[in-house]
Amino acid sequence: MYEKALVLLREKKYPQLRELLATMEAQDIALLLEEADMDVVPRIYRILPKELATDVFAEMDPDMQELLIKVFSDSELGEVLEDMFLDDTVDMIEEMPATLVKRILRVATPEKRRQINDLLSYPEDSAGSIMTVEFVDLKQDMTVKQAFAHIRKTAPDKETVYTCYVTDSRRRIIGIVSVKDLLLNKYETTIGQIMDPDVIYVHTHDDKEDVAKTIDKYDFLAIPVVDNEDRLVGIITIDDAIDVLTEEIEEDIAIMAAVTPSDEDYFKTSVWGHSKNRILWLVILLLSSTFTGMIITNYENLMNALLVSFIPMIMGTGGNSGSQSSAMIVRGLATDEIKLKDFFRVFVKELLIGVLVGTALAVVNALRTWIMYELMYKNDPAYADYNIWMVSLVVGLTIIGVVVLAKILGAVLPMLAKVLKLDPAIMASPLITTIVDACAVLLYFNIALIFLPI
Amino acid sequence: MYEKALVLLREKKYPQLRELLATMEAQDIALLLEEADMDVVPRIYRILPKELATDVFAEMDPDMQELLIKVFSDSELGEVLEDMFLDDTVDMIEEMPATLVKRILRVATPEKRRQINDLLSYPEDSAGSIMTVEFVDLKQDMTVKQAFAHIRKTAPDKETVYTCYVTDSRRRIIGIVSVKDLLLNKYETTIGQIMDPDVIYVHTHDDKEDVAKTIDKYDFLAIPVVDNEDRLVGIITIDDAIDVLTEEIEEDIAIMAAVTPSDEDYFKTSVWGHSKNRILWLVILLLSSTFTGMIITNYENLMNALLVSFIPMIMGTGGNSGSQSSAMIVRGLATDEIKLKDFFRVFVKELLIGVLVGTALAVVNALRTWIMYELMYKNDPAYADYNIWMVSLVVGLTIIGVVVLAKILGAVLPMLAKVLKLDPAIMASPLITTIVDACAVLLYFNIALIFLPI
Repeated sequence: MYEKALVLLREKKYPQLRELLATMEAQDIALLLEEADMDVVPRIYRILPKELATDVFAEMDPDMQELLIKVFSDSELGEVLEDMFLDDTVDMIEEMPATLVKRILRVATPEKRRQINDLLSYPEDSAGSIMTVEFVDLKQDMTVKQAFAHIRKTAPDKETVYTCYVTDSRRRIIGIVSVKDLLLNKYETTIGQIMDPDVIYVHTHDDKEDVAKTIDKYDFLAIPVVDNEDRLVGIITIDDAIDVLTEEIEEDIAIMAAVTPSDEDYFKTSVWGHSKNRILWLVILLLSSTFTGMIITNYENLMNALLVSFIPMIMGTGGNSGSQSSAMIVRGLATDEIKLKDFFRVFVKELLIGVLVGTALAVVNALRTWIMYELMYKNDPAYADYNIWMVSLVVGLTIIGVVVLAKILGAVLPMLAKVLKLDPAIMASPLITTIVDACAVLLYFNIALIFLPI
Repeated sequence: MYEKALVLLREKKYPQLRELLATMEAQDIALLLEEADMDVVPRIYRILPKELATDVFAEMDPDMQELLIKVFSDSELGEVLEDMFLDDTVDMIEEMPATLVKRILRVATPEKRRQINDLLSYPEDSAGSIMTVEFVDLKQDMTVKQAFAHIRKTAPDKETVYTCYVTDSRRRIIGIVSVKDLLLNKYETTIGQIMDPDVIYVHTHDDKEDVAKTIDKYDFLAIPVVDNEDRLVGIITIDDAIDVLTEEIEEDIAIMAAVTPSDEDYFKTSVWGHSKNRILWLVILLLSSTFTGMIITNYENLMNALLVSFIPMIMGTGGNSGSQSSAMIVRGLATDEIKLKDFFRVFVKELLIGVLVGTALAVVNALRTWIMYELMYKNDPAYADYNIWMVSLVVGLTIIGVVVLAKILGAVLPMLAKVLKLDPAIMASPLITTIVDACAVLLYFNIALIFLPI
């Protein structure tokens, strides 16, 4: 269907396109418009059935929304604002340049304007910033029949009608009732009889990530949000919760890969923007690797091709062991599976894993070294001064030490970051690798000084 | 509430605990039971109100479910099976030992047994494996009133009642209608008049990750699943879709950190299990770093403390630059933002980013080297033979080359993996780092041979 629409669009067959678009989902039409020339977008937008048009508008990229708002008449803009869900409107306004924001607020009805300003005033990461004020509220003395009448009357405006919230005269939430409950009870039953008074709710200033996790945990379709005086002021729906959850994970992945996280898509970000997001950590890591270099300059008399040839392997193994642990711990902390009180359990567990894995790697390395020596280097001058088994012993002991250290740092540093109220992800792989590198080289040369002739 | 229940549990105040539990969510009670001694779990489970008990059971860990099934009488087990949603039942059975599976299938009603066996026969990653067969189906000649009556009669069994599916006489899906649509229309209206005939559906054999992405994209509460003959056989609900999406991202994170992914939680996995998940990639990476070592042994005459001291920094910078790109590209591919046809665009973009970032890093490094030389190493014999600016030039050129190479490999290898139908995540950071390491050392020594006296 999408491909067919694309063909009609390219061939400028607008009457047929109009018919086809009317049967498509808003998300697909928004994607389709991305592929169209900028100057035909308003034209295609205007051939859409009115209700679908607003849905399509809400699904568009901010750039495309900006383009359309600029060509909209005030009455067109007013209609879109009236039909769009309030949380989508606020999301859009946050991306618009100041002049367009002014025009949007001027065109909106006074009631809408007040609601928009209310929502804009919540801090960026708060529950308030992602909630919508459009929900169904019932009173406990209503009957099921009255409740249905109320929903029928107000539903077209409400983002989620399937969970209804029961409030008292002071707008405090006292119960919830699902449309399923309404359907399963007699018309005469009062809401007070069937509502569930044990409501799980959140506060406007709660962290939006925690709220999203709560919705996910309980498999809710929406969660009610109350203000400082415990009055019901909005709801957060599951689709927005999913967005928050995936954004947070994407952010963690970026940080773990030493990239400054950004909300922008890959192609939407310029070469310059990508470079800016990547350079900061690279500079920090480059400068901190200075220590590893300084350690090496202190061991001038160990500089021979044989001993130096093991450095990349030792550093690589340390770095990889550390990333393994830190990735596991960062995710465990993010999903609340690992808590700060588990510190000691995690420490012991990673220590044991480090010993086991390190020993196995030391054995693999000894075999590898022996095979290579027998096959390739028996007459190499680089190997002349050394007993190959002693070298394997030195490298093996270093590997065990480095792997244990990397595992422990990979586990401890993210937890430490959490104690310090930092994002655990910044302690992931690259930073740990750099610390482990320095320790690895120091350990290696000192073990070498003990066991090998210099 | 949870903390209060925990106190009552520890003080063995079961009558009060029972009262409190009745007001709690199933998810919290399941977590609470995890904290209880194994021998009191059945006792607490049995004081729960019956309906809540089944919900709690469905939320438990497989271990805890196994424990309870072992102490259940056949009639208790039968009741749980009858009340539990079918997709939860199948999830549970997949984790049980064979003897318990036999008992479960023996105790289930013949109808349930047939349904369970049907669902168990779908491949692990297919849409069929996560669907439920419990949905509301309507006929197009029903009126809204009849539809409500039908929902009332069958709803207690249905996981999601808010989207109803309209089927023809051969059970093929011909439309969908939401409960919201039903509420907004008159009782006499027929379903055929108000249903949306443009149904987005998936096939039982579709990949469950694609299905989850579709549900997310369209903000659906559920999506219908059809069999090979286009008959409606089940639905997949949004809560299961969220689980699939997060599992897939967790899997990607594990693979990117060189850990063999596993479904098990961190603490549920033994030291031995963790070690097994981590050792494979470490051995592969250790063996492949052999090449870097071999390259180094070939440049015996460049082995001095000054030149060697830059190796960790060069390798680290290359590795970090590569992980940045690969993490971005792997996520872009996973979210379908980057497609294979974008190969050339990505290549050019990463090339330019590489040149920009590499040049900036080369400048930072030259400054750093000069400052360190002036402050610390002016009289160091390691530096005696070299012009410090020539060394900075050699290292700088190497950095630019290595960063460009790392960026390009980080972008190209994940896309190549996708062409070869492999998971792009396996080409992420650790593997790329190892390849970049070898190239970095080779490049470094060759540039040094050109510009420096040996």
